[in-house]
Amino acid sequence: MSYTAPLKDMLFVMNELAGLADISTMPACEDATPDTAEAVLEENAKFCASVVAPLNGGSDKEPSFWHDGNVTTSKGFKEAFKAFAEAGWQGVQHPTEFGGQGLPKLLATPCIEMLNSASVSFALVALLSDGAIEALLTAGSDAQKATYLAPLVSGKWTGTMNLTEPQAGSDLAAVRARAVPQDDGTYKVFGTKIFITYGEHDMAENIVHLVLARTPDAPPGVKGISLFIVPKFLVNADGSLGARNDAHCVSIEHKLGIKASPTAVLQFGDHGGAIGTLVGEENRGLEYMFIMMNAARFGVGMQGIGLAERAYQQAVAFAKERVQSRDVAGSAGPVTIIHHPDVRRMLMSMRAQTEAARALAYVGAALSDIAHHHPDAALRADSLATYEYLVPVIKGWATEMSQDVTRDGVQVHGGMGFIEETGAAQHYRDAKILTIYEGTTAIQANDLVGRKTVRDGGAVARAILAQVRATEAQLADIGGADFQAIGRQLGEGSVALEAVVEYVVANMKTDIKAVFAGSVLYLKLAGIVLGGWQMARAAIVARQKLDAGDGDAAFYGAKIATARFFADHILSQASGLRTAIIDGSAGVLALREDQF
Amino acid sequence: MSYTAPLKDMLFVMNELAGLADISTMPACEDATPDTAEAVLEENAKFCASVVAPLNGGSDKEPSFWHDGNVTTSKGFKEAFKAFAEAGWQGVQHPTEFGGQGLPKLLATPCIEMLNSASVSFALVALLSDGAIEALLTAGSDAQKATYLAPLVSGKWTGTMNLTEPQAGSDLAAVRARAVPQDDGTYKVFGTKIFITYGEHDMAENIVHLVLARTPDAPPGVKGISLFIVPKFLVNADGSLGARNDAHCVSIEHKLGIKASPTAVLQFGDHGGAIGTLVGEENRGLEYMFIMMNAARFGVGMQGIGLAERAYQQAVAFAKERVQSRDVAGSAGPVTIIHHPDVRRMLMSMRAQTEAARALAYVGAALSDIAHHHPDAALRADSLATYEYLVPVIKGWATEMSQDVTRDGVQVHGGMGFIEETGAAQHYRDAKILTIYEGTTAIQANDLVGRKTVRDGGAVARAILAQVRATEAQLADIGGADFQAIGRQLGEGSVALEAVVEYVVANMKTDIKAVFAGSVLYLKLAGIVLGGWQMARAAIVARQKLDAGDGDAAFYGAKIATARFFADHILSQASGLRTAIIDGSAGVLALREDQF
Repeated sequence: MSYTAPLKDMLFVMNELAGLADISTMPACEDATPDTAEAVLEENAKFCASVVAPLNGGSDKEPSFWHDGNVTTSKGFKEAFKAFAEAGWQGVQHPTEFGGQGLPKLLATPCIEMLNSASVSFALVALLSDGAIEALLTAGSDAQKATYLAPLVSGKWTGTMNLTEPQAGSDLAAVRARAVPQDDGTYKVFGTKIFITYGEHDMAENIVHLVLARTPDAPPGVKGISLFIVPKFLVNADGSLGARNDAHCVSIEHKLGIKASPTAVLQFGDHGGAIGTLVGEENRGLEYMFIMMNAARFGVGMQGIGLAERAYQQAVAFAKERVQSRDVAGSAGPVTIIHHPDVRRMLMSMRAQTEAARALAYVGAALSDIAHHHPDAALRADSLATYEYLVPVIKGWATEMSQDVTRDGVQVHGGMGFIEETGAAQHYRDAKILTIYEGTTAIQANDLVGRKTVRDGGAVARAILAQVRATEAQLADIGGADFQAIGRQLGEGSVALEAVVEYVVANMKTDIKAVFAGSVLYLKLAGIVLGGWQMARAAIVARQKLDAGDGDAAFYGAKIATARFFADHILSQASGLRTAIIDGSAGVLALREDQF
Repeated sequence: MSYTAPLKDMLFVMNELAGLADISTMPACEDATPDTAEAVLEENAKFCASVVAPLNGGSDKEPSFWHDGNVTTSKGFKEAFKAFAEAGWQGVQHPTEFGGQGLPKLLATPCIEMLNSASVSFALVALLSDGAIEALLTAGSDAQKATYLAPLVSGKWTGTMNLTEPQAGSDLAAVRARAVPQDDGTYKVFGTKIFITYGEHDMAENIVHLVLARTPDAPPGVKGISLFIVPKFLVNADGSLGARNDAHCVSIEHKLGIKASPTAVLQFGDHGGAIGTLVGEENRGLEYMFIMMNAARFGVGMQGIGLAERAYQQAVAFAKERVQSRDVAGSAGPVTIIHHPDVRRMLMSMRAQTEAARALAYVGAALSDIAHHHPDAALRADSLATYEYLVPVIKGWATEMSQDVTRDGVQVHGGMGFIEETGAAQHYRDAKILTIYEGTTAIQANDLVGRKTVRDGGAVARAILAQVRATEAQLADIGGADFQAIGRQLGEGSVALEAVVEYVVANMKTDIKAVFAGSVLYLKLAGIVLGGWQMARAAIVARQKLDAGDGDAAFYGAKIATARFFADHILSQASGLRTAIIDGSAGVLALREDQF
């Protein structure tokens, strides 16, 4: 099943909702003009569609496999990653100083979406390298940067994140891996890490493992975790590869989805100790890891959007081709199933949620760019706070959404959807990991409640809601049934979200369990309302363009209809969620353990 | 992962909500006393837990396979089906005249649930035989009954339904298989049938294919379809097996789930013609097939409930065992994850939806018994109408629900859920077929809208809603926050459902596309409101029992809490669904095909 990047929608969102023209006026972003952005996206779209997308189905059927400590990746992955690296795609958002293209996150984000539409399994290797690069840029020493960054940015080497251990999944306080300081300033690392994405593979010359471990006198809990670089091959002073390090892949997992991406169990130090170097200071590992994780969480949100887009395209193609039954309104013979109202409902639901999440994520990416590059410090701070509020929402909501969308994608295919050959089922399987790794949806919701809502007493949430209200005022000025419906549902949604924010802030101290009983639902509500807000903004722009006779009437008309759909079908869930959050904790918490 | 039948909840529903004691006073149901029911369920529970449930995981990993036209089923299936047959479980609900136990549907239903909890793949062979038996009982000739029923009821032979062809899935009008009359009164059948569950296997001596085909002069469309018995082996006059018939399995499918159940492509008549005999009259095949299908649809609804129960039990077991992170309210060390509010929320959601669907389905089964056996003709007719309204709701809602539940089941397991070894992912994969076969959810919704709502102008729906109102009145008489919340949400739900029923009836003629744009959402709304109604009834009984100090306080307390959860978290979705149905068709239908 082929993939065609939705460039029109991507560019619309970048230009009209995320303010690309303004972004490109900021220092260090000057290259990212709308024209350049379009050219970059077009090139990336070609690469993803022609090189990576064709590998997705076959690599699911013939996944990576382990043999004697090595992993052979699926057919074509090695060559595709080489081409990816040589074209410079790994470096899109990384500093020119280390060989990157230094483009803003707003421009890198659609590239990441496309790569994930092409193949989530393939895209993971690049996502993990991005995270390692971010961490080293922030916390690495000059020597570490000099050694590791250029090969990572160029895609000659790849990176990994080694957090999880059998007893330490969501709970990093339980990490047990040990790092023993050596006389030469290095550390010997010992321990077992599990669920390490691309922890071993044959697509790059070296693998840079970033590993959480404890030094001998470290305090217990998360305050005693340090971060180490433990490369697969040690690196000589001249940058050439030295001895094989004592970090070995003992097995890979048999998984529900993303089968082409090897998920490794790594054993560190079974043969004397894996040699590592400390990143930054001891006991600050979690802090550095969060740098990687925040970037990676946003990236996983993009995986959800990319996968949803691919599933949508596949369902549309099938619905336009498959002939079955007459039109309910009467037709001479059987019609293609896209004529059946419930198939349309599913396609619109897939489309509307994907577009809304895309818009929210790209707006988030622009906020991150402003936070890093805008000359106005106050605006930088505000933008950072808003971006940080959005990260768990984008990660949590877009990935949960991708499971709804890929489920509908199978359903549109009917019986054929259940046959693996069709390919729709792969998306359903692949999507399930997205709400789990890089922090489950509940972990995202904890972050949203704790660090992003309660810590500032709800200030950022209220500031965002004030912007939603401004959009509502604009909607009220536009006539017609579509805009009335959008305005009504967005209004009810923002009222519900506001009530929930106030509930969370007011009850966190007195009834913390009740607040957390609704935390994931709060995240979902925030996703729906803020995604609906972006769809409303998009509809307003579309109306203005149509009124001005400016551009593609079919595209703008569809945007308004899709926003209308989102309002009636998705935003309308807001009041039910409010009830479940504010009234629903009693039912969640009532049972004793033995009553389950 | 082991399975323990929820006998306490099953018997509670049968006795307190479905009126087993009354059922057992009806003619032909006298054996089904509450004591007998309990004994039968206990035996069935033992069988399912000890013989079938242990096969579920292994049979997914080593599915049935095809070789030279034969299918070898997964290890243990053949022996387990022999034991199933010998214990008489295939015959629970079938007439004693043909060797069955002649027990009411209310009693057979929990047995079917348990078998599906044990293994959906295994249960399918029995489900298909049940359908074939129903069809032959209704439409078969005396000779056909004499030949086929006893071996089917005893489990010596099994049955299949052959509807689907490559171009004829949901649309049976497109069936092309041909049946040519022969001088001896038999027919020669030609054609290809796909997606035939247990169309070939090694678990029984013979397979009785019921096949839809067209006779030479049949009218086009669904009015020209006849039903034929085409056995795998012809049957001699003395009941012994004769020649191999010209019906051959040319391949089986590689599927997302239910991998142990072979899904066959059957080729009829490639070697001269498969010999078949007509069931009933020519051109009435669809009518007979609907007899099978209605039974099978109810049965597929039970598959959803059985699978949801299994996934719930597995998630609870994991949540009680897995230690991770401290309690949010503060604890000395890490706790089992069942202490975390969001894990509880997911477990309660799984539990509440499973219990609600179970209650609705068992009440439906009792209505079917009343419709068949009650001496009062008016009550029989009313009960039949209500049962028929419920069948698409039970099939559609319980199976969609099972996809929500199995998704949460994986999520509760975190990273381990994504590893196939854990077993949680199998349920997620298995569940996806349930909303597709025996009529997709949209086909169920078409039935609910057309035959079950509009045809009688909404009369049955209104009569059911009047009963819901009576329950609301009872709730209003009971004090306390739980019952207030249940009453409020059920009230809002029934108002929404009533508005939707009136909308459907009023708009079917003038705006049929708009009605069908919301048909699946109407089905979901009906499921939620009627499931919530049963949970409310259950809570009222539980309150009475607690007040009377009668029985198991922990069970009744949990029932009230679960009903409360259902009200706040599930029933609260009703008003959003009403909006999506009544206002939402514009967004569904706005796009031209080229805009997708």
